Amino acid sequence: MDTIKRPVLVVDEDRCRANIRSMLVKSRANGAFFRPHFKTHQSVQVGRWFREEGVDGIAVSSVSMARMFADDGWKDIMIAFPVNFREMGEINELAGELDLGLLISCPEAMKSLLGKMRHPAGLYLKVDVGTQRTGFDPGNTGEIGDSLALAASDPNLRPRGFVAHAGHTYQAESAGEILRIFSASMEGLLRLKERFIPKHPGLSVSWGDTPSCTLSDHFFGADEIRPGNFVFYDGMQLELGVCSKNQIAMTVAAPVVAVHPARSEAVVYAGAVHLSKEQGKCAGGRIHYGRLVFYTPSGKARWPEKDIFVRRISQEHGIIEMPDEMLNKIRCGDLLGIVPVHACLAADLVRTIHVV
Amino acid sequence: MDTIKRPVLVVDEDRCRANIRSMLVKSRANGAFFRPHFKTHQSVQVGRWFREEGVDGIAVSSVSMARMFADDGWKDIMIAFPVNFREMGEINELAGELDLGLLISCPEAMKSLLGKMRHPAGLYLKVDVGTQRTGFDPGNTGEIGDSLALAASDPNLRPRGFVAHAGHTYQAESAGEILRIFSASMEGLLRLKERFIPKHPGLSVSWGDTPSCTLSDHFFGADEIRPGNFVFYDGMQLELGVCSKNQIAMTVAAPVVAVHPARSEAVVYAGAVHLSKEQGKCAGGRIHYGRLVFYTPSGKARWPEKDIFVRRISQEHGIIEMPDEMLNKIRCGDLLGIVPVHACLAADLVRTIHVV
Repeated sequence: MDTIKRPVLVVDEDRCRANIRSMLVKSRANGAFFRPHFKTHQSVQVGRWFREEGVDGIAVSSVSMARMFADDGWKDIMIAFPVNFREMGEINELAGELDLGLLISCPEAMKSLLGKMRHPAGLYLKVDVGTQRTGFDPGNTGEIGDSLALAASDPNLRPRGFVAHAGHTYQAESAGEILRIFSASMEGLLRLKERFIPKHPGLSVSWGDTPSCTLSDHFFGADEIRPGNFVFYDGMQLELGVCSKNQIAMTVAAPVVAVHPARSEAVVYAGAVHLSKEQGKCAGGRIHYGRLVFYTPSGKARWPEKDIFVRRISQEHGIIEMPDEMLNKIRCGDLLGIVPVHACLAADLVRTIHVV
Repeated sequence: MDTIKRPVLVVDEDRCRANIRSMLVKSRANGAFFRPHFKTHQSVQVGRWFREEGVDGIAVSSVSMARMFADDGWKDIMIAFPVNFREMGEINELAGELDLGLLISCPEAMKSLLGKMRHPAGLYLKVDVGTQRTGFDPGNTGEIGDSLALAASDPNLRPRGFVAHAGHTYQAESAGEILRIFSASMEGLLRLKERFIPKHPGLSVSWGDTPSCTLSDHFFGADEIRPGNFVFYDGMQLELGVCSKNQIAMTVAAPVVAVHPARSEAVVYAGAVHLSKEQGKCAGGRIHYGRLVFYTPSGKARWPEKDIFVRRISQEHGIIEMPDEMLNKIRCGDLLGIVPVHACLAADLVRTIHVV
């Protein structure tokens, strides 16, 4: 830890591997294919831990990420983001090298994609199960049927099924609500699969999101799951009741640059360009930008007895409010740990990983 | 513009240079040294435009940024962020190569710095003029005097003066309030300078922040100004009344990946990992994550008659609400422009610059 000079991701390998194994075991028990989403870590090294644990298919959220993991030997990659037509050259290259899954989320995109692939690729329809981000309306079976038929008419497109991401589980008030979203959405998706599988054999249902895949022991018939965040977990998952403190596997190392006893605050080198501006909520409803942990000499996280928060951030500054007896022991140059509110955004910002 | 494949910063060189020249002219008229903050663009290329316009001293917010600009030939650099004691090796290397300004913001940091420099460096005391981020309390002249005396006792430290950043101008309700913060804060800073200059000749006052430096024709006696954002401006400055639409010099290019006529929304490839999660506020108080512009064939921004906003974002998705007659003309693969809420964060995220 003494070699850390500036904000890096401190990643606890044992905890990551435990998180990976736990999700893999549950997928196997449910007969679901485990296709972890690598947008959370975007790390070749963490990706290899997945491979060592027995994973061989992944999801990513950009063509650039697909290229990075393809170059590290991954042969089954779904780009779980609507096709970016300005990268058709790169997409075709990938399709020529590996088993590529593509995703479209509206009829207009299906028409645009027709005739543009020079190599075979799997095609998924993104279905909007209530997040209102993007996707086909599951009630509009006319549009869904037409797009599947168009896809089937292209010799290089193979209709593979339906992809859903229940992003609205992140706004859920309770574990019960998350499970209700999961089961109700899966019912609708399975009806779509039943309706269209006679014409398009092999259609499957792929389900994403860490809250529902972590909290539920049953996957309600999903053929595949694509959680991503679970490899690290974070403050948001903790506040949702999805994970425990002991499952959180990543922190941002933050050097102390000022102590202000009169304000009961320490200032660290870790701000919006490291933690992102994603806001968490304390028990009383007050917002925060991360939670404090201390590091053992080997870099393991040690949680303080009382929760301590990053109260304000600017571009590089993080301001941590803490009791005076804690602040008195802190010196400029010390290294503190911050559990980010949203691990995916922090990992995207701070690309350097320090494994412990 | 046809070569743009994924989110990049589209930077209007003419507008940038006009913004630079305007601030430079005003600094000269006020007899203030112009030390632009390069954390906004973090670009060697944009930095060279400043040099061509006549700038030769800069501020940065990390040791890494100082190294990047030092390698491009800058010889007068202030690291306008409290000294990170874990990078003393890098800091000493820079001090050996160029005129380096360092900043400390509490007495504890001053004690820690003592004896750690192997080459001469300028030392500034950061003063908290009300932002409550970090800095000496301007009323605590005991602490300030002690720290200046400690600095003067180190043969490699040269007390240079006081640095302030009025970050709370960003919460101001009006231009008048911004000017009141500026003038009142400067009064306090000039009192500090007067008090300590007999013992420490050459002390100066360095003032930052784009809102006050843009809105005020007078710099109230500041010896130096360090605005950064003004090179691009952004949605936040527009909403504060600091700049006009025609001064905004940077947009994020966002490929359209889905159109949803039933929801009057288009989905673009530009999300939290490009725009950041910084929130802006529409006239009615509703939050947003960016404003839509169209591009001319040469990449100049063309504002729609009515303001159009990015309403929701996730990691890579941006969702833009727009009237049906506008949406009807948009196709997957089109390139739209997004004026970010906070240009500094978007530029930190999207490092690739496309100059028009």
